[in-house]
Amino acid sequence: MTALPTADDIAHLDATDPLADLRRRFMLPDGEIYLDGNSLGVASHDAMAALDMAARKEWAQDLIRSWNSAGWFDLPVELGDRIGALIGAGPGQTVVSDTTSINVYKALHAAIGLREGRNVIVAEAGSFPTDLYMAEGVISTLPGMSLRLEGREADRIEDLIDDHVAVVLVNQVNYRTGALRDVTELTRIAHGAGAVVVWDLCHSAGALPVELDASGADFAVGCTYKYLNGGPGAPAFIYVARRHLGQVDQPLSGWWGHARPFAFETGYDGDPGIRRFQCGTQPILSMRALKGALDIWDGVDMHAVRAKSMALTDLFIRLVEGKCSGLGLTLTSPRDPQERGSQVAFAHDDAYQVMQALIERGVIGDFRAPDVLRFGFTPLYLSFADVARAADVLMEVLESGSWRDERFAVRAAVT
Amino acid sequence: MTALPTADDIAHLDATDPLADLRRRFMLPDGEIYLDGNSLGVASHDAMAALDMAARKEWAQDLIRSWNSAGWFDLPVELGDRIGALIGAGPGQTVVSDTTSINVYKALHAAIGLREGRNVIVAEAGSFPTDLYMAEGVISTLPGMSLRLEGREADRIEDLIDDHVAVVLVNQVNYRTGALRDVTELTRIAHGAGAVVVWDLCHSAGALPVELDASGADFAVGCTYKYLNGGPGAPAFIYVARRHLGQVDQPLSGWWGHARPFAFETGYDGDPGIRRFQCGTQPILSMRALKGALDIWDGVDMHAVRAKSMALTDLFIRLVEGKCSGLGLTLTSPRDPQERGSQVAFAHDDAYQVMQALIERGVIGDFRAPDVLRFGFTPLYLSFADVARAADVLMEVLESGSWRDERFAVRAAVT
Repeated sequence: MTALPTADDIAHLDATDPLADLRRRFMLPDGEIYLDGNSLGVASHDAMAALDMAARKEWAQDLIRSWNSAGWFDLPVELGDRIGALIGAGPGQTVVSDTTSINVYKALHAAIGLREGRNVIVAEAGSFPTDLYMAEGVISTLPGMSLRLEGREADRIEDLIDDHVAVVLVNQVNYRTGALRDVTELTRIAHGAGAVVVWDLCHSAGALPVELDASGADFAVGCTYKYLNGGPGAPAFIYVARRHLGQVDQPLSGWWGHARPFAFETGYDGDPGIRRFQCGTQPILSMRALKGALDIWDGVDMHAVRAKSMALTDLFIRLVEGKCSGLGLTLTSPRDPQERGSQVAFAHDDAYQVMQALIERGVIGDFRAPDVLRFGFTPLYLSFADVARAADVLMEVLESGSWRDERFAVRAAVT
Repeated sequence: MTALPTADDIAHLDATDPLADLRRRFMLPDGEIYLDGNSLGVASHDAMAALDMAARKEWAQDLIRSWNSAGWFDLPVELGDRIGALIGAGPGQTVVSDTTSINVYKALHAAIGLREGRNVIVAEAGSFPTDLYMAEGVISTLPGMSLRLEGREADRIEDLIDDHVAVVLVNQVNYRTGALRDVTELTRIAHGAGAVVVWDLCHSAGALPVELDASGADFAVGCTYKYLNGGPGAPAFIYVARRHLGQVDQPLSGWWGHARPFAFETGYDGDPGIRRFQCGTQPILSMRALKGALDIWDGVDMHAVRAKSMALTDLFIRLVEGKCSGLGLTLTSPRDPQERGSQVAFAHDDAYQVMQALIERGVIGDFRAPDVLRFGFTPLYLSFADVARAADVLMEVLESGSWRDERFAVRAAVT
């Protein structure tokens, strides 16, 4: 075993970090190390300024005129294109609207419409659950359609894809383990069987390079409140490959997806472009905070983000395994950084209590039932010193047994 | 014709207005008379304070913990109950989530599920269009279902309701004319034919007393950014009568509608209560602004709101008809205030240009194609003096012909 990095090594990593300057744009919580950006990203001065402008000027002073003068009307497609640039999507294929769950519903219906006569949706038993729940909802309205799950009907998703499959719904990064899938390869396999793929990018957008267009992707969805730092519950995005636009439909056919929404026509005539995947009026205050947050990404190289992400997560694994040996932790994330997103998960028999004790000590991660300590690493605002300190605190908590205190055993509503 | 009210009469109306004190809680635009609260309600100090708290404290400082500590998790049902109190709905039947369009989709599916074997949706050709578009979306996934429209298949909606009809989707207040329907009477007729009703309350919630429970209503939806002043695009609400809860389902079955959303189960098990009508994570910043805006309603008597609304709209009609005779206006709203919501519409051949000229003079209403000048009257922040001044400006614009200036002929994207 090689020696653990020293304080000097850590300082050197921070001193040579090309993304280090971005940290000052964020409002990091005082005295805490926030390793939960994969659940809710940190606020930024940019987001606050945008939100103030939206609330105090655009809403309070300009009111209804802001739909034109402040560009509210085009925010969904404007923000869609800006997110598109971060996920390898050319303009006009991505729109910000609604929630990830709603967008899964739209994408599945659109995908199934492209593959009439096929009657299977393939997904993962280990998927973030709402994707499966939405697939169930789609199936409830389409008699004869059924769901096949990796981890239930077969171990590998590839083995479930045959010529009955209309669509494969799959997470690029697993929300519990951080395991990373190869978008290009799975898309190739699905296309080879005549199926299309809906990628859930919730845990990859803003965390690593996603090359949707280059991968031949069909559909993707994702949230904007994790690595994109758009604010709590900020609206989600949906991507539809240009070659499918004009050929796809989805049943959430609200007025914002109409080709002429302000003509107030009686019948629906869907926009031929990505606007068809809009539905109703979006929450503008939340959209404007997201717009501010996206300003931070101007000029950021996603490959630099990925390099730092791998370095941060590698460092955390090395330090934790080096310092917490024999203290009940088992790495459940892939050890190879190429197979891992920007998070690290350790199993522990009393993960809930350990996480509560960590939070009390100012290291904020989260717990995922039944036994996962999950730590997210956002390269835009975390330092290597943060990572080293977090590993030390974890060691202290485990060595001292402080997590056994009964006050850590009471579970809050949302964990 | 009786004499028009004098300045003294107007002053007396304001001096004796029991709601006059509420005006100071709003951030009214400087030097303008805002008669567009039925499109986007005015900002309030309460909403701004709530938004600041949500952004600067709950998000920026407390981050992920705010799901518990700031009550974010329960906001949809908390705000649902508060709106419920304004629309005659007892607790546990209303939830704030998504958009009106999405909620129409949920409600229609749930309603149709209650009436298996019936295959007709009745709606209005003059409906706000998104309701019809969403009905089309529902029909696209349910073969054999069809749409019958008042104004197309019959003049009166009552004449379309027979034993083939599963659900009647209807606006309580017409978005163009302001015509008001009797909820109790139409619900009685629909129930008599074995159908259920989905009420769209977008133009009535917060404008007049709605007695959902007492009317025997089944479902209702509505937005929160008009008379409830929740902010641009603030999330919408959906009401499901208690007697239907536990028996209804809807296909947007996201994790927030699960009985145990944070157990991360593979299969969907919908909450038996109103939470089942949630889907994904809501935009918290917009939700919190709405929460602030709803504080203003504490202790407000909706019957006083209605009395002032009728007085404001009556005054406007009297003054405009008295002062603008022969200038090309035709009242298209019901003249009887009992049959009218809180808005007044006049037709004019060049309504778009006239409205632009009014806006330039500081009287903000809106235009609805092809020929409608629409004025909304929000009793919480408008004075009778505002109404008198607006009528004077309208007279001045029409008399002078200033609206004929070519700069008013260019249409903006959103009108």
